Amino acid sequence: MPLVVHKYGGTSVADAAKILSVARGIGKVRDSGVEVVTVVSAMGNTTDDLVRLAETISPDPDPREMDLLLSTGELVACTLMTMALRSLGYDAISLSGSQAGIHTDTVYGKARIDRIDTARLKKELAKGRVIVVAGFQGITADQDITTLGRGGSDTTAVALAAALGAERCEIYTDVEGIYSADPKLVPGARKLAEIGYREMLELASYGAKMHPRSIELGRYYNVPIYVSSSFSDASGTLIHQGPDEQPMENRVKIAGITCDTNVAKITVRSVSDRPGIAAALFEPLADAGMSVDTIVQNTSLDRTTDISFTVSRGDLPGALRQVEKVLETIGAPDVASDSTLASVSIIGSGMQNTPGYAARMFRILAEGNINIDMITTSEIRISCIVKEEQVEEAVRLLHRGFELEEAQ
Amino acid sequence: MPLVVHKYGGTSVADAAKILSVARGIGKVRDSGVEVVTVVSAMGNTTDDLVRLAETISPDPDPREMDLLLSTGELVACTLMTMALRSLGYDAISLSGSQAGIHTDTVYGKARIDRIDTARLKKELAKGRVIVVAGFQGITADQDITTLGRGGSDTTAVALAAALGAERCEIYTDVEGIYSADPKLVPGARKLAEIGYREMLELASYGAKMHPRSIELGRYYNVPIYVSSSFSDASGTLIHQGPDEQPMENRVKIAGITCDTNVAKITVRSVSDRPGIAAALFEPLADAGMSVDTIVQNTSLDRTTDISFTVSRGDLPGALRQVEKVLETIGAPDVASDSTLASVSIIGSGMQNTPGYAARMFRILAEGNINIDMITTSEIRISCIVKEEQVEEAVRLLHRGFELEEAQ
Repeated sequence: MPLVVHKYGGTSVADAAKILSVARGIGKVRDSGVEVVTVVSAMGNTTDDLVRLAETISPDPDPREMDLLLSTGELVACTLMTMALRSLGYDAISLSGSQAGIHTDTVYGKARIDRIDTARLKKELAKGRVIVVAGFQGITADQDITTLGRGGSDTTAVALAAALGAERCEIYTDVEGIYSADPKLVPGARKLAEIGYREMLELASYGAKMHPRSIELGRYYNVPIYVSSSFSDASGTLIHQGPDEQPMENRVKIAGITCDTNVAKITVRSVSDRPGIAAALFEPLADAGMSVDTIVQNTSLDRTTDISFTVSRGDLPGALRQVEKVLETIGAPDVASDSTLASVSIIGSGMQNTPGYAARMFRILAEGNINIDMITTSEIRISCIVKEEQVEEAVRLLHRGFELEEAQ
Repeated sequence: MPLVVHKYGGTSVADAAKILSVARGIGKVRDSGVEVVTVVSAMGNTTDDLVRLAETISPDPDPREMDLLLSTGELVACTLMTMALRSLGYDAISLSGSQAGIHTDTVYGKARIDRIDTARLKKELAKGRVIVVAGFQGITADQDITTLGRGGSDTTAVALAAALGAERCEIYTDVEGIYSADPKLVPGARKLAEIGYREMLELASYGAKMHPRSIELGRYYNVPIYVSSSFSDASGTLIHQGPDEQPMENRVKIAGITCDTNVAKITVRSVSDRPGIAAALFEPLADAGMSVDTIVQNTSLDRTTDISFTVSRGDLPGALRQVEKVLETIGAPDVASDSTLASVSIIGSGMQNTPGYAARMFRILAEGNINIDMITTSEIRISCIVKEEQVEEAVRLLHRGFELEEAQ
């Protein structure tokens, strides 16, 4: 019997009526002779509410406690979904991340999956049951509960699909698929019928609402991921071993424009320019589990240098603490930060062998009077850090400038 | 270093301010050189809210799913309490029932503790940590989450105190201790400075707000249990190897009056009066994990009998289903039920060798025009089933009639 993994986000399970509606949809798939493993996120704004609750107790809650607290949101949603399926006559069972065998490392708040022990999952599937798994969470070797970070339920779903050899992983959300830009910002944005893993990885890393790690996992294990709406029957977007992995001459060069306002910049000024400085600066951040994005370093004539890098805004206080610890070691007088920035990126595998995309991007932004603070590039992406208040305009200008508007 | 177990009920941890206040109290105890393991219930009405949420999805939720759902309430409270302790500078860690090694049987909704594996608890205590345990829950051999039934956090606390060899278990609640009757019903009710396990067991079984199983456990393992208010410094009630276990001639004969409105009565009519009937009727109820209380059987001249028994109101639908299955087997034409009843009990070890208490109780109720539907007795308790609307009056009349009013 074919097996698919479904994943439903918070808005898809926000209340009892929506949960029952999703359960009916899962039931239809089951009736068609398909085995279903469903991953659910916490209902609506539950996770935000729990974070606020913790902040009423402590300004800086312990990460281990925070993870155990947040994991309850997905447990509630997955038991309710199971009750809904059972009330419709389907034999269903809920499993916590721990019960589903999702073993992670110990980096609380952004744990990574080490392995999935599928014994319990396979036992329940063998009984003909629909399994509902609490997304976003796992367990360490010491039986402590971890969470995978915001959007982590996508990763739970793709990891389960890989571990169980599912035909594909279907991500149901509040949008109809992946667009050439955020339709809320760009009315003419096009929905993509398909996209390759690498392009999607860049889109997800730079603002599209999917967990980038889920795309990495999908690519590594070659799990096709289908993104569509839980509220409409419109066709969605298939993320798979697509055009960007099989170069063709005349495909669309730019897949999409994306932006990310969750950007904070840290600048360490007048660092001595000698070997080992970057390591001394960035190793403590890595040890603290913080992901550093764009890094820019420019050495001046007096043999000192300013190093700037970006982190997510939630990591800014922690990152500053780590940096302050090593200021003396690296011979830097002080550190500055700015959390009024955002990134805008153009993404497309078509760029990699074609010169001129970067220049065209900078020209379009300059004509819009948008100043560029930092620049980074990958093979298939160019990102600019700009003022947050200008980033939406930047997306619109680039979408038009690269002629991505929907064909009339 | 001496060790105590504290338990805080839902009203004691109802909001952030209360949680921080409790944490400060725990901190003071820790500062005095005492090791503390704290058990917390879910905040305020969380459990009721979760039950209602489940009922919006399904009228008859699966018990396994219900337990996993309800267990989240205590997880939230215990992580917040841990954050509060840490914000005050105490090294604290939260443990779910599973992490605290609380292993139970598989009777969802009212699981019983099989054993406590104290390895993790002892490891954390050895680190000098204050441990905060999620009450009310455990885990089965198959790693499924169970709950211990309403009030189960008391049992968690006493079981941990027994397993860890604690000096005593302190139950902090919204009343100042154990009274000779509910002070809300009887303004002259007396607070008891101490009470024996057996008397307390009867009080708890027949309406006082403590989990009777916690008292059984305390008695078996000889764990002194101290009940007092988390909102005042008034002295509470010590439940221990007390006067009822060491008979003395001139002690107070009646410890208290209690009532329970969570009573439903089932009557199976015209049962054939032959051996095995009671077993055929009650075995399926026991297998379904339902606790049957008062049982009355009266055989009539025509060799048939009516069997009546009481269950908690929550168990009434399930109990009726079990009974209906065996009606044919036991040769009974039909079954009736009544959920408008309540029990009122007088409790005191002083009664066991002294005749006349029952007669005096029945006389007091009769003079109050309160009709008695069923009667049961134990060595140290006499209970009458009466109409629910008369039970509060019954408590007041009995409290006065047995001269339990506070000395002026």
